[in-house]
Amino acid sequence: MTRSRGKPAPADLIITGCTALVHDDHEGIGFVEDASIVVREGVIESLGEDVGGLDAVERVDARGQLAMPGLINCHTHSPMVALRGIAEDLPAVEWFNDFIWPIESNLTERDVELGARLACAEMIRGGVTCFADHYFSMDTVAAVTAQSGLRAHLGEAFFSSQGAEGREKSLEFALRHRGGADGRITTALAPHAPYTVDDADLAATAELAREHGLPVHLHASENREQTDNSLTRHGRTPIEILERTGLLHHDVLIAHGTGIVERDLPVLENASGRIAVATAPRGYLKFAWDPTPVRALREIGIPVGLATDGAASNNSLDVWESMALTSLVQKSAEGDPRWLTSRQALHHATLQSARAVGLGERIGSLAPGRRADIVLVDLTGPHTQPVHDLAVTLVHSARSSDVRTTIVDGRVLMRDRRLLTLDLSSTVKELGERLPALVDRNHGRRIQRYDT
Amino acid sequence: MTRSRGKPAPADLIITGCTALVHDDHEGIGFVEDASIVVREGVIESLGEDVGGLDAVERVDARGQLAMPGLINCHTHSPMVALRGIAEDLPAVEWFNDFIWPIESNLTERDVELGARLACAEMIRGGVTCFADHYFSMDTVAAVTAQSGLRAHLGEAFFSSQGAEGREKSLEFALRHRGGADGRITTALAPHAPYTVDDADLAATAELAREHGLPVHLHASENREQTDNSLTRHGRTPIEILERTGLLHHDVLIAHGTGIVERDLPVLENASGRIAVATAPRGYLKFAWDPTPVRALREIGIPVGLATDGAASNNSLDVWESMALTSLVQKSAEGDPRWLTSRQALHHATLQSARAVGLGERIGSLAPGRRADIVLVDLTGPHTQPVHDLAVTLVHSARSSDVRTTIVDGRVLMRDRRLLTLDLSSTVKELGERLPALVDRNHGRRIQRYDT
Repeated sequence: MTRSRGKPAPADLIITGCTALVHDDHEGIGFVEDASIVVREGVIESLGEDVGGLDAVERVDARGQLAMPGLINCHTHSPMVALRGIAEDLPAVEWFNDFIWPIESNLTERDVELGARLACAEMIRGGVTCFADHYFSMDTVAAVTAQSGLRAHLGEAFFSSQGAEGREKSLEFALRHRGGADGRITTALAPHAPYTVDDADLAATAELAREHGLPVHLHASENREQTDNSLTRHGRTPIEILERTGLLHHDVLIAHGTGIVERDLPVLENASGRIAVATAPRGYLKFAWDPTPVRALREIGIPVGLATDGAASNNSLDVWESMALTSLVQKSAEGDPRWLTSRQALHHATLQSARAVGLGERIGSLAPGRRADIVLVDLTGPHTQPVHDLAVTLVHSARSSDVRTTIVDGRVLMRDRRLLTLDLSSTVKELGERLPALVDRNHGRRIQRYDT
Repeated sequence: MTRSRGKPAPADLIITGCTALVHDDHEGIGFVEDASIVVREGVIESLGEDVGGLDAVERVDARGQLAMPGLINCHTHSPMVALRGIAEDLPAVEWFNDFIWPIESNLTERDVELGARLACAEMIRGGVTCFADHYFSMDTVAAVTAQSGLRAHLGEAFFSSQGAEGREKSLEFALRHRGGADGRITTALAPHAPYTVDDADLAATAELAREHGLPVHLHASENREQTDNSLTRHGRTPIEILERTGLLHHDVLIAHGTGIVERDLPVLENASGRIAVATAPRGYLKFAWDPTPVRALREIGIPVGLATDGAASNNSLDVWESMALTSLVQKSAEGDPRWLTSRQALHHATLQSARAVGLGERIGSLAPGRRADIVLVDLTGPHTQPVHDLAVTLVHSARSSDVRTTIVDGRVLMRDRRLLTLDLSSTVKELGERLPALVDRNHGRRIQRYDT
């Protein structure tokens, strides 16, 4: 960085004239009017100050728009957008055994690449700046992440049915890609779930987590039936299995947890500070599962991040909708309209989601020193007017389609709804051509069997 | 209509190249590819035929878009958009008594006008072509409806606390505006609810309905607590009160009905063919109410139309969201992922909603002879690709923001997301200036007390 005498070097990016969502010292949500955000080397240098005559390589005039931390999709399977809408109105057992796992036995790296590209386009358009992905052929997803400009927390999924090779591949992926894409990629070990990965493999994963300082991302206690079956077969809940195999001594991101029961709470509380839960409420409604017990988890200090799961169950990667549904479903499930206010929902969407993906110190808040993962939201549409309380407007009236501009590490990935890093039409076209082969189920194979 | 020899007169509007959502003889949802829709004098003249060299005053090239019947908001209070987000995270009793009814005692005709205009803008942008409105100062709402180009089913609300005057005003409104706005306005008598309108007034309303051939639109059995309180106080459920006062012998649109219980079902079944229920699922989640018992109502042949209620509880007038939430919440409430499929949700959004507002023969389907209330939906966004089943894509992946063009009676009200009949910015500006006076609650008045 060079400076002419008395004149600071130009910033990389300055956003001016916006209203900025910020957190106070107690993590309460507030708003700063007419704010300027200065970004240098991917980091927020300042927020709210008068930037006077400071030069910048790129400027965004954001008058009338709201700046907030980019949304974080804490659990998805991004390439599954290819299967969006193919297996509907089914219980989970048929959804897995009759559709998803037979179809996934056809999956090629090219399918994964096209799916991930489409998914990244959808997420950028929906104001997502970081996603936690748990799938197969993750080298390909890492390459698409790099190209898209998004931040991602990636794990190569494995089943015990793959033998030791699955686990080794997951480790090898995590070590090789850790810190990739200019530091935007973080990695995790990714056993599929306690019902598809045996206790010995889970214990071995815990040992690898310890040895290599890696977090773990897995499905657990996805629904109440899994918990009941686990108790019948093993005398332990899925959460107790995670504890017994040593996983809860490490950083663990648990997807779903809608089957978490009373006896799990002290077990989870003992692991507080290391673990988090990702909630994807749309799919739970669709499968007729209970919601994640967000209130009970809050009482024991477990962060709950927002997620969409894959689009094959959720039908979209719309984290904004997950934010609104989390508030709505929690009120309904607890029978308490006062619970899970808009500010609480925004806390889940920002700091709690950042913690869930292990980035609690780097993203999730617009503050000096944090990475510049920012979205600009247009609140001038008739559906968001008038504004009595910006937090309420954001959660209950705004939609993902109101995001105008998406920025990661200070780089603009979408500007005024135009995608800048990905070509959508060629992706959609080629994916469409590949679909008949992808969705063929005549072979009778499946990659795994759902039998909790 | 003049014709030159051998050449038909130009159509008023031709939409070409779309995929059209249609109903078969059993009301099943299907799709016609590469369809042309010809509109003349506000009516669909043909659908799906090759229009060859037919001239038209206006043409819409809708390649890549889906044409479907415009959405119908079967129960709202459109001017309440002014109060969007002002009373949050509250049980209904405090929401009414501490916020809404005190604030509504400040309401002026100008507030109603600005609110209705903003609401119509929001609905047109969200693909709504018809709304059932139940509010005050409805002359003003009728005028805004005429200006906006929307279709509406309007009723002047009244409480028994207004004395006979309220009921008479509701009748006078219904008679004066019936058939207004070139036939786009239909009207109803609009008692508020059995808990604010006494049995004598309800019976008098039933008599007026008979005498004047008017339908009735009211709130009833909004939640389970109302049903329980009604049983305690009167020994009858709200539905039984409607029956006893003679209302169920006429065409009645019941808003909400989430408190409908087993003993109500035979009562409602006896009125089948005359009554319908409007469901607004977002607000029920927010107030922690049960959902409308859609499955039980279906079994006794009662149409259930989609609605948003007012934006003060729902935070938007997004009927598209009501469609998706109806499917999701019903699966969850019934514990059955197979129930309320996307095709069923689309049936609620189209024919059942049309029946709910008394227009079952005129709108709700794209078919020759029906009014040309059509929306064009863009399904090329990344969140709606790929398409395995158009019905699923529409319900579970598309959003109201994907509506590009909104047409009522063959008149284009929004084209490529640009509103053509309403000026939004002046409305929002003036409404903002009026808000401090509107929302002032220091006077201690309220228009009514919620006490079921």
